[in-house]
Amino acid sequence: MSDFVGEMTGLLRRTPELLRTLLVGLPESWTDTTDVPANGWRPHDVVGHLITGELTDWIDRTERILESGTTVPFDKFDRFAHADRDAGATLDELVEHFARLRAENLARLEELITEGDLDRRGMHPSLGEVTLRELLATWAVHDLDHVSQIFAGMAGSHDAEVGPWKVYLGILLRRDDPSAVAG
Amino acid sequence: MSDFVGEMTGLLRRTPELLRTLLVGLPESWTDTTDVPANGWRPHDVVGHLITGELTDWIDRTERILESGTTVPFDKFDRFAHADRDAGATLDELVEHFARLRAENLARLEELITEGDLDRRGMHPSLGEVTLRELLATWAVHDLDHVSQIFAGMAGSHDAEVGPWKVYLGILLRRDDPSAVAG
Repeated sequence: MSDFVGEMTGLLRRTPELLRTLLVGLPESWTDTTDVPANGWRPHDVVGHLITGELTDWIDRTERILESGTTVPFDKFDRFAHADRDAGATLDELVEHFARLRAENLARLEELITEGDLDRRGMHPSLGEVTLRELLATWAVHDLDHVSQIFAGMAGSHDAEVGPWKVYLGILLRRDDPSAVAG
Repeated sequence: MSDFVGEMTGLLRRTPELLRTLLVGLPESWTDTTDVPANGWRPHDVVGHLITGELTDWIDRTERILESGTTVPFDKFDRFAHADRDAGATLDELVEHFARLRAENLARLEELITEGDLDRRGMHPSLGEVTLRELLATWAVHDLDHVSQIFAGMAGSHDAEVGPWKVYLGILLRRDDPSAVAG
């Protein structure tokens, strides 16, 4: 039997240390810019959103699949819950809060499921039937998606300082035009 | 006087540990996919490209600015030098090679320059006049750009496993269509 659960948790357990390495102690000049200029998220917002996932999404939905299958849809995910909740926290505090929650949730996941549960199904309120396997893959790829967003904001914070090299830096060009291709 | 050099090196010195945290020991199922389906780079290629920068670009160009100003253009950067050079190395070996080179180069940079040198100018072979300040900012943003590319490849490796959630995952949608917007 393959170890799909281990493959996913092997990535998920890296994210807290990754965020620490990237962000803790970094000056605000690197962390106070949004990933895209209009309606974007600063790293503070992104880590807050990752915290919301740990608080209300991934484990809750795993439990819902195990307890109710497709008969009770998942609760909706509030993509803006962080805005008020985390307004008073520093970025470093959020990273540590996320790290604690992630560790607790991975320990909880190990108690909850085995490989044999991966084909069990649940009901997403918008997307319809999904499997536990898809939920776990999404948890991991969601980390990658949002950490990338942090990188885009950090790059954007120094957009004005790279001078003519900007034409080679896709991470900056895409902030202005998503379809831009670096020279 | 602001500490622009410290701001850049403060980011640059994080990248080796970031790559270790992300990649070392990770199974190939996460690392054997390119950032975009056509002509993309696997994490192995990206780390190789970062190594090329340490070997032939950033410090060489800093020295050229200090020694020759705008009178001698920089040597061209070979964006595909890694392909043959690193074909026999494992990803973990490349990460450690990069880490050694980056540490050496940051030590060398500290010997070479001070804040007072930042407005000194050099000649890029395609882009024309650039400043040392722009070179340093580009070095840092280039890290962010290429580490993001690693994230895109890692996400892509599990594109088929997230099921219907893909519509919410911009990092996957953009691999197929750069202008795609997540739902």
